[in-house]
Amino acid sequence: MKDIQSEKDYRNIPINQVGVKDISYPIVVMDRSNGNQHTIAQINMYVELPHDFRGTHMSRFIEILNIHRKGISTKMIPRILSDMKEQLDAERSFFEIRFPYFITKEAPVSKQRSKMEYIVTIYGDSAENSYCFEVKVPVISLCPCSREISEYGAHNQRSYVKIKIKTADIIWIEDLVEIAEKSASGEIYPLLKREDEKYITEKTYQNPMFVEDIVRCTAEKLQIDKRILFFEIESENIESIHNHSAYARIISR
Amino acid sequence: MKDIQSEKDYRNIPINQVGVKDISYPIVVMDRSNGNQHTIAQINMYVELPHDFRGTHMSRFIEILNIHRKGISTKMIPRILSDMKEQLDAERSFFEIRFPYFITKEAPVSKQRSKMEYIVTIYGDSAENSYCFEVKVPVISLCPCSREISEYGAHNQRSYVKIKIKTADIIWIEDLVEIAEKSASGEIYPLLKREDEKYITEKTYQNPMFVEDIVRCTAEKLQIDKRILFFEIESENIESIHNHSAYARIISR
Amino acid sequence: MKDIQSEKDYRNIPINQVGVKDISYPIVVMDRSNGNQHTIAQINMYVELPHDFRGTHMSRFIEILNIHRKGISTKMIPRILSDMKEQLDAERSFFEIRFPYFITKEAPVSKQRSKMEYIVTIYGDSAENSYCFEVKVPVISLCPCSREISEYGAHNQRSYVKIKIKTADIIWIEDLVEIAEKSASGEIYPLLKREDEKYITEKTYQNPMFVEDIVRCTAEKLQIDKRILFFEIESENIESIHNHSAYARIISR
Amino acid sequence: MKDIQSEKDYRNIPINQVGVKDISYPIVVMDRSNGNQHTIAQINMYVELPHDFRGTHMSRFIEILNIHRKGISTKMIPRILSDMKEQLDAERSFFEIRFPYFITKEAPVSKQRSKMEYIVTIYGDSAENSYCFEVKVPVISLCPCSREISEYGAHNQRSYVKIKIKTADIIWIEDLVEIAEKSASGEIYPLLKREDEKYITEKTYQNPMFVEDIVRCTAEKLQIDKRILFFEIESENIESIHNHSAYARIISR
Repeated sequence: MKDIQSEKDYRNIPINQVGVKDISYPIVVMDRSNGNQHTIAQINMYVELPHDFRGTHMSRFIEILNIHRKGISTKMIPRILSDMKEQLDAERSFFEIRFPYFITKEAPVSKQRSKMEYIVTIYGDSAENSYCFEVKVPVISLCPCSREISEYGAHNQRSYVKIKIKTADIIWIEDLVEIAEKSASGEIYPLLKREDEKYITEKTYQNPMFVEDIVRCTAEKLQIDKRILFFEIESENIESIHNHSAYARIISR
Repeated sequence: MKDIQSEKDYRNIPINQVGVKDISYPIVVMDRSNGNQHTIAQINMYVELPHDFRGTHMSRFIEILNIHRKGISTKMIPRILSDMKEQLDAERSFFEIRFPYFITKEAPVSKQRSKMEYIVTIYGDSAENSYCFEVKVPVISLCPCSREISEYGAHNQRSYVKIKIKTADIIWIEDLVEIAEKSASGEIYPLLKREDEKYITEKTYQNPMFVEDIVRCTAEKLQIDKRILFFEIESENIESIHNHSAYARIISR
Repeated sequence: MKDIQSEKDYRNIPINQVGVKDISYPIVVMDRSNGNQHTIAQINMYVELPHDFRGTHMSRFIEILNIHRKGISTKMIPRILSDMKEQLDAERSFFEIRFPYFITKEAPVSKQRSKMEYIVTIYGDSAENSYCFEVKVPVISLCPCSREISEYGAHNQRSYVKIKIKTADIIWIEDLVEIAEKSASGEIYPLLKREDEKYITEKTYQNPMFVEDIVRCTAEKLQIDKRILFFEIESENIESIHNHSAYARIISR
Repeated sequence: MKDIQSEKDYRNIPINQVGVKDISYPIVVMDRSNGNQHTIAQINMYVELPHDFRGTHMSRFIEILNIHRKGISTKMIPRILSDMKEQLDAERSFFEIRFPYFITKEAPVSKQRSKMEYIVTIYGDSAENSYCFEVKVPVISLCPCSREISEYGAHNQRSYVKIKIKTADIIWIEDLVEIAEKSASGEIYPLLKREDEKYITEKTYQNPMFVEDIVRCTAEKLQIDKRILFFEIESENIESIHNHSAYARIISR
């Protein structure tokens, strides 16, 4: 059968990224406490295509995924990227993977334990000696203005802090989650008894933070970590008094 | 050209609904204050298909939409439904339309005005003399338990109250929005100055409501309206202290 | 600390469903080929609330989930439902769970194997001796009209067949997937080599089906299965020639 | 009342972007054929915050939006950006707006007319003399490999071409839509009669294109337009034979 993809292309236009997008795939990821955990990932795999090739071979991306299915971890990404370059005869390869990751959290007073979900995305690029990863962490924010001007109460809401970093070292997902959770008015838990709810309500009220405070407080912690080559911090507050979000973003130089 | 859709079907299986789904279309809807407003709708149009016809004629649904495009309103729905029955030679027709609808809200103290979005869905069925419509209204909920047990503060969050009713009368979207907004701890506004924020924070703190209270309080108001033949009320609180929602639902008998 | 939720309510309005919604949770499900598989579920848990109670106890839902976390399967649903009734002192309980489920598929010619995702939803209600479950299956549809009237080619597209059944027996997810896949123009695979692509292209062209044909063909297979007490079939074709879907639905009497 | 936002901040961390996100708002946009059209936008408005200010004034963003509500167009963006800088006392401002835009399309043979939706995003940054805009265009792709190796038929599917450009000139949305539609196997229409369906099926079969061909063909047309300072082209094919997408991206130097 004719291999149309391997035909010459004469338009003289290289393609930055070509491949497969939104593959859903069960994976195993490393876990600081338990060794590893099973989860379901959304995966994108791309290669650079030189100007003189008409097409890439899409099925080979899935074959590479199948080889590595028993354990996809940040440690394996350089290997996946080099397999992609080799199998697809490419100068550069890209691997993006997003998955829910669970950490057992202990309620602050009752000490009851339950699993909390965080969304993690890892970006690998064969042209870099480092990789990027991003963690999305739900937290509580309580408005300092509302607290200051009101006789009682203060509006508060769920917020999402997103930390994206570039590093060449091993940094645990858990480390970034802790940084985000310590940079908001309060932490979020899957399971809280009444004594925990009292503790969190009071602690949050004593710790009012604007969306601006959350991103700055997170930045202070990331700035001093030598392993982090680049960071981008976003916070989005799902405002309880509005139907839109308050948002802030800091990008490291 | 052969009309394959009009072929006989011998499987003896009628189809409850067949047609077009997720058509995006600019429409004009009636508005209690301004006469009408322009918006963008997502539309589904279906007919019943008798057991002996192989297929329906999909393009005719779009032709009917084009005829009515200058003004799609709840008043027009019986006409659209009968056009569908006629043009598609069907015993029964269904028309579903969802659109964002804007109401100008005045901030409680500063009186500043701005436009607030509500999501409206209308369900028409040619076999009924009534129609259904649904309004999704963002509000604030403040937890009575958190307030009671804490020295200061109380967790609060954005909630969405969904009211779906069946009626044969004209009931304004604005009427259902007001019922939902009066049944929560507080209202949400697009634009608030500092004096408004103080007012809302304090009022919400004085009016704590569980998700259960919100649906019951809404139900009390709908029960006494004779024009309402059926109702379904949902409230979903985007909990600020959890990463999941609290939810309640009441269905009228 | 005061238990506000347990206060009396005097509005005389029972609540059909109250509980927690959209909990993300890692689970293990039974698998026809491998015994079981790990996946991530979205879970809703509700109870009925009598008219004279003000509120339910939200944290207990999560405690029940934690007890059953090692293995949530359709077999376990009656147990979870009765635990919910007991722990929440309720007359009726509801458990809804949605998760991606993977089946290894073999390409038709090359026999290469890879994992394909299907979305499964299970609905449990303590008031019923049966349970509902739903499988969403991606397939190919090729238009009979386009094929008939054109000199060459025929428009085709990805479609999603959704089968929802009520049963009191064990019916495997795999069984429903096979029924949907056998009722379309062709099957979808995660990994296809060139010989497979030729086979599927030709087979699909020889097997043109309208959205109406897909739901009827599925209904024929479900009608004769005595274990199925009720079914609802939907097919949605992501039309390649339009920016909207063609849709059909059959509900069993 | 105390103005907490205006307090000094001593952390020495400037914030790149702070403001309001996901505001839903009815707007009027310019239209090449009809002068203008009504639509509903999702809007983000941000300013840069110097290191020594604690917070910005969120309500002022909405006030600016209210002033410009009668006509938000690409022509108005420099004015909105300068109002934002002035009202929020900022060095730099950002305005992002996304909306559905409708163009009346005529079917190729029957000449029947109907409205087709395209998603448009405009990005304004006060630090630039140009602005970015992006159009997402649904088209058909037909696989050259499938056509070549099969006796009859060829798999085809809906694809989305996204063109993002930077320009200092007026470029009509319609111009970019035409470029994308001319760079695929075939165009998509909201309303097609049988004679149109025959025409499109045959034309698409005669014009097979890989995802790689679509982005290159689009790039050829954008490269020669002097008004375009930068472009990024993406194509995503919703593969009919797979449950994932084929994807390609070209970024201009």
